[in-house]
Amino acid sequence: MDRITQIARKDMIDIALGGAFLGTGGGGDPYIGRLMAEQAITANRPVDVLAADQIDDDSLIVPVAMMGAPTVMLEKLPRGDEAIAALRALEAFLGRKASAIFCIEAGGLNSTIPIAVAAAAGLPIVDGDGMGRAFPELQMVSMTMYDVHACPMVMSDEKGNALVLNTVDNLSTEKFARVITVEMGGAGMIALYPMTGAEAKRAMLRDSLSLIATIGRVIRSEQAANRNPADRLAADLDGIRLFEGRVTDVERRTEGGFARGQAKIEGLNDDVDQTLTLKFQNEFLIAETSDGRPLAMTPDLICLLDLDTGQPITTEQMAYGYRVIVFGLPCDPKWRSEHGLELVGPQYFGYEHSYQPIETLTTNP
Amino acid sequence: MDRITQIARKDMIDIALGGAFLGTGGGGDPYIGRLMAEQAITANRPVDVLAADQIDDDSLIVPVAMMGAPTVMLEKLPRGDEAIAALRALEAFLGRKASAIFCIEAGGLNSTIPIAVAAAAGLPIVDGDGMGRAFPELQMVSMTMYDVHACPMVMSDEKGNALVLNTVDNLSTEKFARVITVEMGGAGMIALYPMTGAEAKRAMLRDSLSLIATIGRVIRSEQAANRNPADRLAADLDGIRLFEGRVTDVERRTEGGFARGQAKIEGLNDDVDQTLTLKFQNEFLIAETSDGRPLAMTPDLICLLDLDTGQPITTEQMAYGYRVIVFGLPCDPKWRSEHGLELVGPQYFGYEHSYQPIETLTTNP
Repeated sequence: MDRITQIARKDMIDIALGGAFLGTGGGGDPYIGRLMAEQAITANRPVDVLAADQIDDDSLIVPVAMMGAPTVMLEKLPRGDEAIAALRALEAFLGRKASAIFCIEAGGLNSTIPIAVAAAAGLPIVDGDGMGRAFPELQMVSMTMYDVHACPMVMSDEKGNALVLNTVDNLSTEKFARVITVEMGGAGMIALYPMTGAEAKRAMLRDSLSLIATIGRVIRSEQAANRNPADRLAADLDGIRLFEGRVTDVERRTEGGFARGQAKIEGLNDDVDQTLTLKFQNEFLIAETSDGRPLAMTPDLICLLDLDTGQPITTEQMAYGYRVIVFGLPCDPKWRSEHGLELVGPQYFGYEHSYQPIETLTTNP
Repeated sequence: MDRITQIARKDMIDIALGGAFLGTGGGGDPYIGRLMAEQAITANRPVDVLAADQIDDDSLIVPVAMMGAPTVMLEKLPRGDEAIAALRALEAFLGRKASAIFCIEAGGLNSTIPIAVAAAAGLPIVDGDGMGRAFPELQMVSMTMYDVHACPMVMSDEKGNALVLNTVDNLSTEKFARVITVEMGGAGMIALYPMTGAEAKRAMLRDSLSLIATIGRVIRSEQAANRNPADRLAADLDGIRLFEGRVTDVERRTEGGFARGQAKIEGLNDDVDQTLTLKFQNEFLIAETSDGRPLAMTPDLICLLDLDTGQPITTEQMAYGYRVIVFGLPCDPKWRSEHGLELVGPQYFGYEHSYQPIETLTTNP
């Protein structure tokens, strides 16, 4: 993996593509965020990327993101300055300027909007994130494992409303922020988890932006060579092609500020497992065969790729008839700790399964 | 009406009683707020009351209150220091200390909790309020008519969560605060509408605390003389005895952070109007005869009194079998302006009626 040191306008295609891949179906539409970042870079200058060891211990690192159901984000485009408004309101509350921007998660929107904010604010962005993928809830970040508080957190919307949250723990932050998001019409811009550089270095998952850019480049170059990127991604990332098939049913509802539902994928050949069910809450959380056997489960990554082009498909893009590859990836080892699984394991989401790593599930059928 | 200049522990009985009367069925349980204020006064000292002309123009006046459905407030007792926490968080956000406390409305809880806060904080309280009665929503205050912004507003709960709201208008403040209240479990403490003394003098309804204390004293002295206070209150306040009867049906639901419903009251004698229906959203909003003719409507006050003792009855205390007097009072003239009726007239609450003053409705049947 090559380390990325600066993000120019031309890099945004790969970053949007790689972000959408690690977004595991969630994390928002890559196209909108890419346009926002491209415009901001053109209007200002390329964004410098800080590797972990380049961060000053006493600097102020601020993650910014869009929060809400991806289904809503598609219809409620950011005006462009709400994210900056959230950053500025948090800085005002803290009485201190941010030194660098940080991505709370990997995803089409939340790997790109922070770059737009960094460009507009003239700040560098950190090569790391809080999830190494996308998750649906605010407290589901490595920072929670390292006792970094999500608050003070600022939420702002396109009308000009701004709220500052100070809650007793990160799960409470999620609960309050979620109802406020719904009241904002389903999506809002957030600035949260303000951290010192020392805290960020301890708590973050490193090199995520470099990984995202690399994944995007692989997808694009394989597409250019008329090859499906899945094989090379599997080789480069220890990934696993779990299933191939056609989407035959998508059940989707926006409830409580989330896009929840499931999709059925029927095998293209007369396989032993003829149907795979993907369950999601913004992100794909579990892949189950028709006899209820899981092939992959959260926090491992379940990515959906177009069978022909290898293009990542988000949960809201999924539709009847799509021919897809279901692709699995082991998550960051931090998520497999006891604390990690409490935060993002299958049982937190209400599934009965105890977590088993994707490597185990796919080698011991 | 005698002007009250200081509130001692012994004064709290009358204030709780008078507050509950002007609460028109809402404004919370007078007993809890009275205990909180009595304890705070005993632990500190009596609270000085500032008449409008004693307020410095550049002082900082801060209303504090409990927000939520009265049905929930009954079961979710304030711990005692959340209201102070809300005040302190607002002061911290503003970078300025409050000079005096203010009551946002008249009501059992919201005429007494501010006194507890004033006692605990060692501050005087203003002889005035924002409604001259209780209303269910935050923007329904005289301050809105005078362009005073509800924000920055702080909300805090007994767990230690605190949120600062900065919204584009007072109706948006209500909408965000309402969903946050629900997430707090149905009720929370608030500090909002921070005002300069000059703004407070212009926007407030004057002498409310003196009126409340006077009403409470009348109710108590009439009760002591074994007389129902309704007649003397009618004479003193230009009030109207609208109906007497027995509660035969109460339909009540807690929805969207409000206690909504209606009660049927059957006449005790063979009157022409045998049944009166009271519709409420925290407060009584409309009194209608069985043929749909209104006898009184918001913003005029509809108060429910025990037929035997004259004790005010809140919407959550109302129960089958209660023998009651329905008592009406003209509202503050400010509410009868065009802007006032937009904020709190019957059509805002979804009723078809155009507002007619209680005096007109009861003299031209």
